[in-house]
Amino acid sequence: MQRPSADTSSNTSSNTSSTADSSDTATAGTLLTCYLCDQAADFLRALRTTPEGGEEAALDLRRPARRISAALHTFRPFLDAAWADRLRTELAWLSGTLAREHAYTARLARLLEALGRLSDTKAEPALSSIGAARAGALLERQLTLARTRAHSAALQALGSSRFHAVADSVALLASEVPLDPSAHADADAVDGLPSAVESSAHRLTEAVAVLPLGRASLPYNAEGLSDAQDAPWHTVRLLLRLNRYAHEVLYADLDAEGRPGLDPRVFGAGQALDRHRAASEAASAAASAARTPRIAPATAYALGVLHADQRHEVEAARYAFQQVWQQRAAVTAP
Amino acid sequence: MQRPSADTSSNTSSNTSSTADSSDTATAGTLLTCYLCDQAADFLRALRTTPEGGEEAALDLRRPARRISAALHTFRPFLDAAWADRLRTELAWLSGTLAREHAYTARLARLLEALGRLSDTKAEPALSSIGAARAGALLERQLTLARTRAHSAALQALGSSRFHAVADSVALLASEVPLDPSAHADADAVDGLPSAVESSAHRLTEAVAVLPLGRASLPYNAEGLSDAQDAPWHTVRLLLRLNRYAHEVLYADLDAEGRPGLDPRVFGAGQALDRHRAASEAASAAASAARTPRIAPATAYALGVLHADQRHEVEAARYAFQQVWQQRAAVTAP
Repeated sequence: MQRPSADTSSNTSSNTSSTADSSDTATAGTLLTCYLCDQAADFLRALRTTPEGGEEAALDLRRPARRISAALHTFRPFLDAAWADRLRTELAWLSGTLAREHAYTARLARLLEALGRLSDTKAEPALSSIGAARAGALLERQLTLARTRAHSAALQALGSSRFHAVADSVALLASEVPLDPSAHADADAVDGLPSAVESSAHRLTEAVAVLPLGRASLPYNAEGLSDAQDAPWHTVRLLLRLNRYAHEVLYADLDAEGRPGLDPRVFGAGQALDRHRAASEAASAAASAARTPRIAPATAYALGVLHADQRHEVEAARYAFQQVWQQRAAVTAP
Repeated sequence: MQRPSADTSSNTSSNTSSTADSSDTATAGTLLTCYLCDQAADFLRALRTTPEGGEEAALDLRRPARRISAALHTFRPFLDAAWADRLRTELAWLSGTLAREHAYTARLARLLEALGRLSDTKAEPALSSIGAARAGALLERQLTLARTRAHSAALQALGSSRFHAVADSVALLASEVPLDPSAHADADAVDGLPSAVESSAHRLTEAVAVLPLGRASLPYNAEGLSDAQDAPWHTVRLLLRLNRYAHEVLYADLDAEGRPGLDPRVFGAGQALDRHRAASEAASAAASAARTPRIAPATAYALGVLHADQRHEVEAARYAFQQVWQQRAAVTAP
């Protein structure tokens, strides 16, 4: 995320510097305030240009909302904690509501792509075309309905007083960040924020240590068949994102790759776990569609193949995560 | 396979030496005759001790039948070719007929094991227990019926005049192997049989070269989803076995591991491709069960999951084959 240029700097209040290029001399308060200002400006701009809602608008709003929420979490000790917690709760509600429509669109696309692959007529297909077509039609009906409901819910949310209250809180960030007066917000940034970022990296390391990476490194281990073990991987996915955003606060003026101390593995690892989550949810959607009453056996069979296929995608994503994580560890180990 | 001891050496004719320990001095004719004698004796012994048929008896008969057939194939230039071809056809019929009962037993066991794994109640299962139970019952019914029919067919074959003709031909081997009088059967074994074994190794290498090992070395490549590409792998499986048996002829008195020139990869590679074939046929059985009219959607769904699971087993077996094949190649490469 680039630091906003002149057109948004008018939003920054007088007690923050919008040109804090050097993190060595900037105070913790200044860096954090700048970052939150910038994100708040992005949020308010997204709000102005796309008042109608829709998937695009939702993406533009969610991007800064996620970052504000992450900063409130990682740098909570520097902020008015009660206020930060309250805003995080509201941002989580907003992000969750806005995310749903896009998630259904992506899930349907993933499942139809998989059905196409599984019933590919270039080869002897794993699925009969009729079973695949019926399963595709069923999924399309169910996920389109879910998406339409999510769209309505997003529109309703954007028109609600609850949303206006969130927007007001974010607007406050664009003018004045409620720092904790008793905290070390004015201490040297070198002592302050980086230690919070280090804590974030530490939580990530601890969460990764819980993952069965040894098993995941053995291909075709059949560990992905059930979704009982998905949760710790989802946790790591969120922590990877928090860690990446935390570094943005410190080095907003640098490219992602150039940020000192940022583990270069977080990008590839994050992509692998995005795929992990998408496949996990697509598998659930297939299983849920199979519980529709009175479906034809051919449809149910196709959904079974599809479910297993997506659970193997889950396993493949864990393997990919482990490849990214161990490979770079080996490179940086000496 | 150990060389038979005294109790069977009475079957060997006077023109062969049953103590041809050194392949350097034995003639091609002697080595080949000894080997075929020994296998014929094993075949006849299996026939005597288990006239009732059944899976055990079938295994005991198939073991020497496969080896005789392989030797007739690999060393065809040293034999009366028309006679060898005729006997091979008959042995193939017999082996195929006798193999079926055991194959259905093994297939059912594999599928029930997979269903158990997929509906394991220790974790959130991939399959509902009811769907798994119904699919298991359906498979059990169908494969048990198939096995019963195979058993009857095997019994019928063992009582047929066709079988008695095969037994007579094999008995001939135990007393006198029809060598090709015009061929190099009396040449030094060093020049004769080993070149036939080398040809067998060459055919194996060529067949492996056709396999997409590069793709197979990338886990989760989704290449195994369809059975359109199974055939070349099945071919390599058969050639691995032919190659292994060909070395038995040359070095019957040595342990498998000690046979000079035998690629040590053939054992692990053969196991991987046995698993490949078993999974491929189990997947077909699941797909075929799903075409049963009027099954419940839950049953069809479970069979779909099972089919995909076994096709992933196919992919895993290819990965395992490639691991065995490339790893040892790297070790012996320097």
